[in-house]
Amino acid sequence: MYYLGVDLGGTKILTALADEEGNLLERSNVETEAAKGREVIIKNILHSIDNVLDNSGVNRSEIAKIGIGSPGPLNSKTGVIYETANLPWKNVPLTDIIQEKTGLPANLENDANAAARGEKWFGAGRDVDHMIYVTVSTGIGGGIIIDRSILQGKEGAGGEIGHMIINPGGPTCGCGNSGCMEAMASGTAIARMGREALAEDKNGIIAEMSGSDPEKIDAILIANAAKKGDQKAQEIYNTAGYYLGIGMANLINIFNTEKIVFGGGVMKDHDLLNDSFMESLQENALQTSLKQVEICNAELKGDVGVQGAVAVAMEDILGK
Amino acid sequence: MYYLGVDLGGTKILTALADEEGNLLERSNVETEAAKGREVIIKNILHSIDNVLDNSGVNRSEIAKIGIGSPGPLNSKTGVIYETANLPWKNVPLTDIIQEKTGLPANLENDANAAARGEKWFGAGRDVDHMIYVTVSTGIGGGIIIDRSILQGKEGAGGEIGHMIINPGGPTCGCGNSGCMEAMASGTAIARMGREALAEDKNGIIAEMSGSDPEKIDAILIANAAKKGDQKAQEIYNTAGYYLGIGMANLINIFNTEKIVFGGGVMKDHDLLNDSFMESLQENALQTSLKQVEICNAELKGDVGVQGAVAVAMEDILGK
Repeated sequence: MYYLGVDLGGTKILTALADEEGNLLERSNVETEAAKGREVIIKNILHSIDNVLDNSGVNRSEIAKIGIGSPGPLNSKTGVIYETANLPWKNVPLTDIIQEKTGLPANLENDANAAARGEKWFGAGRDVDHMIYVTVSTGIGGGIIIDRSILQGKEGAGGEIGHMIINPGGPTCGCGNSGCMEAMASGTAIARMGREALAEDKNGIIAEMSGSDPEKIDAILIANAAKKGDQKAQEIYNTAGYYLGIGMANLINIFNTEKIVFGGGVMKDHDLLNDSFMESLQENALQTSLKQVEICNAELKGDVGVQGAVAVAMEDILGK
Repeated sequence: MYYLGVDLGGTKILTALADEEGNLLERSNVETEAAKGREVIIKNILHSIDNVLDNSGVNRSEIAKIGIGSPGPLNSKTGVIYETANLPWKNVPLTDIIQEKTGLPANLENDANAAARGEKWFGAGRDVDHMIYVTVSTGIGGGIIIDRSILQGKEGAGGEIGHMIINPGGPTCGCGNSGCMEAMASGTAIARMGREALAEDKNGIIAEMSGSDPEKIDAILIANAAKKGDQKAQEIYNTAGYYLGIGMANLINIFNTEKIVFGGGVMKDHDLLNDSFMESLQENALQTSLKQVEICNAELKGDVGVQGAVAVAMEDILGK
């Protein structure tokens, strides 16, 4: 039998066919066309599935299951997407729809949990039972593997590590709260600190690189400024690393996990975070649990979403 | 068959015999005599087991398993107690020792996780699959139930929620770190804030009740001062409630749990915490997960330790 993984994103849908070992045999990459609304998005998902089947010559009857990774919040148990920032729909029973239209069983999982399952079974978590996948990009997301199973919670909303409050009264987060890890250590947080630095110093490297335009400041620009030796930019990364260390220390204490696997755009510049992050971890985690954990990078890179969706499809073989 | 639960504490050992429904049929309460060292402690554990068997008339061969709840840190998988604050021993292979001396299989669990398992199977968590037990007394401990199983992690050190850092740079905790939930919202934290209040105001109700002796200030005295209308004491409980709310909001976001079950001495005065706690929860938790959680009190009261140990013994019937 074969498995289908669908990585549903705000701009693209990446669908892949996998064998029983999870090897990706065929892919299709189509536009989501999110702005065109619900029916078009669904049509495009189905189209990407058809592409993969047509190109591979694999028959629909040979597909055991479809796994879908989608932005949330969503209910992985009922297969309903409540709402997503980048897709113009609400309360969509996506699992039911896909099952009905394809005649195949399907599973839905939020994208961070799907990515965690991908890394667990096919990436950096292969050899461990306990693992936390953390993605640091615009936001901070995560998926938590305990005894080889994903932590879903009552209705599949578990794993929201980015909104752990670690600095009460701190900067406001996109979620509306203050001082979440996401507000302290994400790409968005780094950019915010960069804009604050620009407001304070109109003549530094950050001002030069951005043409003094706050809109041009993002985490990458600050990373480049730091690499050029800008002290303020380095401090920003140190601050982000410090708070990321606190967040991870908290997770290490709570989960006694074996591996923390980092993905996401900001972690490409993790050299900049590294010293302050590791210092913060040493300072803030309980030593018993800290000694048992390994910190490493994600292995699946750009494929993590679709490989995660494949892991979701393969639940009956691999476990949750 | 029958089960034995041993609740090992710094001053007392409470052992109980339970039937296959977990009903406590017979108990024995003996002094730990911790100061007399390892051999005496073990002798006393065995003595309490003998008491229960003798008094009940149940034969050793009718005991399926012994469950032991002990202060940690310990490794529930190997059955080794690393160290405990109140018992003068280190790296004690307690499971092996008890198994050898009694000829019966045994399981070891840290006391907070054992209590969580007790509440899950015999108390407030009976009807749910996902639950977090939180004990707020001198310290803050917890045990996390996910899909009816206790979260142990790699070596059974999981569930250390008290040392989640929620106020970086805040007061120092007994664990050595700064701004842990335990340093912000435990009985110890309340007493510390009470002593600070005394230092600031030598003529208030706190000064009167303590005879201006900082040593006399504990969480109960501050609770009584608050009930008498002392504004500073009320503020202290509000602060503790605020930080406890942040800690619980973080857990709700991470676990999407169904119930938070509160035990421990400080929660006896939870009326004092309640408004600020609930406000903080509303302010700091993600609404999707907050709507799905119920906050309630532990049901087992003084029996939670031994009933938890019984649940540990009954693992093969109940699950972990």
